[in-house]
Amino acid sequence: MRGVVMRAPGDVRVEEREDPKILYPTDAIIRVSAACVCGSDLWPFRGVDEVHDRPMGHEYVGVVEQVGSDVKNIQVGDFVVGSLFASDNTCEICQAGYQSRCVHAELIGMIGTQAQFARIPLADGTLVATPGRPEAELIPSLLAASDVLGTGWFAAVAAEAGPGKTVAVVGDGAVGLLGVLAAKQLGAERIVIFSRHEDRQKLAVEFGATDIVTERGDEGVAKLNDLMGGLGAHSTIEAVGTQESMMQAIRVTRPGGHVGYVGVAHEVQLPGDELFFSAVHLHGGPAPVRRFLPELIQLICDRKINPGKVFDLELPLEKAAEGYKAMDERRAIKALLIPQAA
Amino acid sequence: MRGVVMRAPGDVRVEEREDPKILYPTDAIIRVSAACVCGSDLWPFRGVDEVHDRPMGHEYVGVVEQVGSDVKNIQVGDFVVGSLFASDNTCEICQAGYQSRCVHAELIGMIGTQAQFARIPLADGTLVATPGRPEAELIPSLLAASDVLGTGWFAAVAAEAGPGKTVAVVGDGAVGLLGVLAAKQLGAERIVIFSRHEDRQKLAVEFGATDIVTERGDEGVAKLNDLMGGLGAHSTIEAVGTQESMMQAIRVTRPGGHVGYVGVAHEVQLPGDELFFSAVHLHGGPAPVRRFLPELIQLICDRKINPGKVFDLELPLEKAAEGYKAMDERRAIKALLIPQAA
Repeated sequence: MRGVVMRAPGDVRVEEREDPKILYPTDAIIRVSAACVCGSDLWPFRGVDEVHDRPMGHEYVGVVEQVGSDVKNIQVGDFVVGSLFASDNTCEICQAGYQSRCVHAELIGMIGTQAQFARIPLADGTLVATPGRPEAELIPSLLAASDVLGTGWFAAVAAEAGPGKTVAVVGDGAVGLLGVLAAKQLGAERIVIFSRHEDRQKLAVEFGATDIVTERGDEGVAKLNDLMGGLGAHSTIEAVGTQESMMQAIRVTRPGGHVGYVGVAHEVQLPGDELFFSAVHLHGGPAPVRRFLPELIQLICDRKINPGKVFDLELPLEKAAEGYKAMDERRAIKALLIPQAA
Repeated sequence: MRGVVMRAPGDVRVEEREDPKILYPTDAIIRVSAACVCGSDLWPFRGVDEVHDRPMGHEYVGVVEQVGSDVKNIQVGDFVVGSLFASDNTCEICQAGYQSRCVHAELIGMIGTQAQFARIPLADGTLVATPGRPEAELIPSLLAASDVLGTGWFAAVAAEAGPGKTVAVVGDGAVGLLGVLAAKQLGAERIVIFSRHEDRQKLAVEFGATDIVTERGDEGVAKLNDLMGGLGAHSTIEAVGTQESMMQAIRVTRPGGHVGYVGVAHEVQLPGDELFFSAVHLHGGPAPVRRFLPELIQLICDRKINPGKVFDLELPLEKAAEGYKAMDERRAIKALLIPQAA
């Protein structure tokens, strides 16, 4: 089959890879209908994370081709959405809603879904079938649910966005934008996003942002505090993962408020004293997307949300490298990849 | 009046200080019935925090001697317990339960309650009167409510200790011990404290600890995980404030679990990547003791809890230096100071 491999930073290729096989009786093989490039794929692309001949991709929707002998809930022919972590969905940690830290968790990113086929471990716990075969127009949104929407949603839940709450969003990438969408769906009263990019501001407003702040750092904090009556936001979504973005998120949140952080932390060191006196709640990490999948799939199939709008570039899988490049250069928010029929 | 002044690290004296006066119409003057030495007073005592001629003390119970013209809720003659932060208890942040970060918050520690009298700002918001004059035997417990119990209680609440929860406690000082008491009162199922001191272990068990772990660092984490079925604690109370104790607290907590941290952070830097993948909730900071005072006073007056047991050394105010020394050398858990009649 054809699949994306990152040979080295900046060197993305589509190559012949071995067809996946059932390795464990709990596996399923899916034919990938759509995959995409994640903001986190840009860390190795830029050489921040080490990379050497790595199959890429952890977001996926597709049709089940084959199931292992222990798979009970998923059938051949099902159209499925899965999370970026394989999880059994039965252990105590999964049951508490933290499937990304399942005692049997596996990173789908190690398998690589930017490909024609993919082996999905723990299929019963990981995959959720859609009600019937979805119309083509829903596929980008269902694909978004698999990570970027689920992650933005988790950030909004971790930040306790909800009725009567003011929400700040740090990061105007696809996750931040879908954090806006999530906060809106959860009933937040006012949603302020930090953004300097006109196309992203536009989408943020479409998803429910009420205010845009273009200032950053101390000026951004001051501007947001002005908007929030001087006290800071009740709920802040952090969707970048740098020192600057984490501190910005903590500083715009009021004492007793909640920061939901989902940007994969890169060289972040949180100063204990500032965190202590901030008196915020801090929660985040790898999003347990599986927790939210049934609800998100329903909202999408009912056409109540349209998170697929974050895909502003669609390419055949063979042109994956263009997608990486466009996202790296911020010419695209998020690139969708369509594998051609095998 | 007589009052404690820390001239320099290690140099604690009881000196003549000016009698406090009403400075603002919202002030009250109290005659201090009992004060005490806080674990946090040991930071300057040991030279970790800078100190130069500082009046000491932020825990207090006493009788109201005088009130400013705007004070409505507190009367002369009331026996009162106050928090270590003065707060108006009416602003939006106070109403959300974060009186320690009140928009008008003042540190009582800047005033110094290890003295015969003290001026308490924002008396209506800060002080809570007991139902009648308490019996002498209740005074240590009421004094404990003013900070050390209130802080341990906040840590347990921040850690979401409660029915069905396993709780780990890092720190066997007075705050950690009262964190045990709080977790027990809140209904926790199993309470494990890290402690190597026999007297503290004994008190921990009396307060409700079910298990003691004497190992620290990685061994301590492994031991606790064994006790918790390999998954870590649901709720962890951090009551020290060092890099080691914070990391210990994060590492013994299961994914999705809650760390309540109240040890004043000293040179702590939290590594963003480890925190991210831990997937814990982190909440803490300066305890909003005022939130809990009415409930704690009631529990004490009803003799349902006896937090005063943390005071294992009682001294006249004049001998305050002995109290500091005994706590510094870990000969005492916590020293109570009784000002003599003026």
